[in-house]
Amino acid sequence: MSLTLLIPEGESQAQSLERQGGAKVAVLGAGAWGTALALLASSKGVPVSLWARRPQHAQAMQEERQNREYLPGALFPESLHPTAEAEEALHEARLAVVALPSKAIRETLGWLPRAAAYVSVTKGLQFTDHHLLRMSQVIEEVTGVGRVAVLSGPNLADEIARFLPAAAVVASRDPELALQVQQVFSGASFRVYTSSDVIGVELGGALKNVIALAAGMVDGLGLGDNAKAALITRGLREIIQFGVAQGASEATFMGLSGLGDLIATASSPLSRNRNAGERIVKGETLAQLQAQKNVVEGIYTVRALHAWGWATGLELPITEAVYRVIYEDADPSEQIGALMGRQAKAE
Amino acid sequence: MSLTLLIPEGESQAQSLERQGGAKVAVLGAGAWGTALALLASSKGVPVSLWARRPQHAQAMQEERQNREYLPGALFPESLHPTAEAEEALHEARLAVVALPSKAIRETLGWLPRAAAYVSVTKGLQFTDHHLLRMSQVIEEVTGVGRVAVLSGPNLADEIARFLPAAAVVASRDPELALQVQQVFSGASFRVYTSSDVIGVELGGALKNVIALAAGMVDGLGLGDNAKAALITRGLREIIQFGVAQGASEATFMGLSGLGDLIATASSPLSRNRNAGERIVKGETLAQLQAQKNVVEGIYTVRALHAWGWATGLELPITEAVYRVIYEDADPSEQIGALMGRQAKAE
Repeated sequence: MSLTLLIPEGESQAQSLERQGGAKVAVLGAGAWGTALALLASSKGVPVSLWARRPQHAQAMQEERQNREYLPGALFPESLHPTAEAEEALHEARLAVVALPSKAIRETLGWLPRAAAYVSVTKGLQFTDHHLLRMSQVIEEVTGVGRVAVLSGPNLADEIARFLPAAAVVASRDPELALQVQQVFSGASFRVYTSSDVIGVELGGALKNVIALAAGMVDGLGLGDNAKAALITRGLREIIQFGVAQGASEATFMGLSGLGDLIATASSPLSRNRNAGERIVKGETLAQLQAQKNVVEGIYTVRALHAWGWATGLELPITEAVYRVIYEDADPSEQIGALMGRQAKAE
Repeated sequence: MSLTLLIPEGESQAQSLERQGGAKVAVLGAGAWGTALALLASSKGVPVSLWARRPQHAQAMQEERQNREYLPGALFPESLHPTAEAEEALHEARLAVVALPSKAIRETLGWLPRAAAYVSVTKGLQFTDHHLLRMSQVIEEVTGVGRVAVLSGPNLADEIARFLPAAAVVASRDPELALQVQQVFSGASFRVYTSSDVIGVELGGALKNVIALAAGMVDGLGLGDNAKAALITRGLREIIQFGVAQGASEATFMGLSGLGDLIATASSPLSRNRNAGERIVKGETLAQLQAQKNVVEGIYTVRALHAWGWATGLELPITEAVYRVIYEDADPSEQIGALMGRQAKAE
């Protein structure tokens, strides 16, 4: 395992803040995860601007000192400043956390002021012009900024906002940037480890949403915990097969940002993608999924992976089954049953 | 991955039964798992003797045509014969499935008639005379029979008895025996894959119970799904570290009998070991755990691993934390918190 915890054991929070220059952090996107990360950093005294796209959302957060829409009950520390003014949010920020829905990143970053460095926390993929792009690649392409990191792990936002213990991995080609991100977010409840495997950390986060959709379908069909455990096990194999072909290290997928995130997302009742899989079995349509306030990234990732698989010939059986159910109205029982080596029958 | 499904696709159930000679199977131990396996084989028409230690238990099963004590509601097919007569159970059986509690195997097999071959389905370890023994080794030592296989996977008995889809792995040094076991138990709902890694398949099944105890403690402490996912991820690493040192293949732990079983056992509300971990946090004592009808194998496995670690110097942090909580009255919050890199606080 190539993960190391870089905060010196004896270093105080104040020393750590001093080392990273007390610099302001801008979080772009005030959904659940962006808000939870803003809470983590600001609770340590780091000045954080939380940028919301909708002015009325920013205003509500300013007045209520919480994000009632996405994370009700988690009160904002003083150093957390919600705003809908992009110039204000990014002014003197030396780090911008991109917590936008994958489908909004390209357009939004296109008109926002530039930051000195970016951290992608969006778990998605884009298929454009015969290329499959990770979010950090989209950010780099749109902004022209090369200092980009990715942060990923088993991080259900609701629990993070309640300061329950959790851990994540930050990866960057720039070790200094990884260290900076670690220092901004590491705290008593949240441990951040660094890695140099950007591809592995990012792909683990994106692909597990597709497996979680399938796991939710297993739940929705009432197939039981044995079947779900078998599916998750095969899912990790599918992620590794794809990821290693893309240049990731297999060991990364065995760690927090791979297996850890997969387990949390595929099993927790708090997981959007797992829940969506369960509801798809009950008849929820693609249009309904797309209309939801809480973006279900897996439905876009599976489409990108399907397009890529079609273009390259790579076979991803679970991904294809999920794609057929969501985009081709295939019967979930048949598709998931075929994965289990039998026709599944709901209870 | 070294797993292969050996039943020819076109072969019918009748042909498969003919190939394995219609031979009688004896299941030794009428707990939940022994009974579920007896149901799987007998539902395919294989004659199965299900041996119970207590005559009144065997008699109740004979009269009620179900195991009301351990698997209520799962009705026995005609070819399933409960009995407390060991001679009768093992007469002409060419395969004996050992589904006894780990602590009873040595003594019980000592006085039972010999079978031609054994399948261990007990997930435990014994530490005796400075040696750590897997159950297949205990069986071989006690019976003097070398034809021993192990069957393991994500197999919560309640779900198997309801014929929900599941899969398992059978491993043996004797490929013919592995094939025979596969043919006896494979069916529409239950897929059995073969492997040659006996050590890996057996250790995965035994060690995951210890990680499941720790996962149950995380649940009991209310630490959330992020923390549990991180713990399971580290747990798999601990299992691999130990198992590879014992001669197992790392790939085996990534499969159904490793990760698959770990996920099912650490996350399902049906899991005895996970549930026990949750109850330990609420104050249940070792004596209470030991007195339970449904054996919690993990409490014996953790003791064996602790003794072995003490003798050899191997460090297994999660195993040690679980040991200290169960056998040394250590505070679960402190022990699990230390694993998470902080003092955990219950909600």
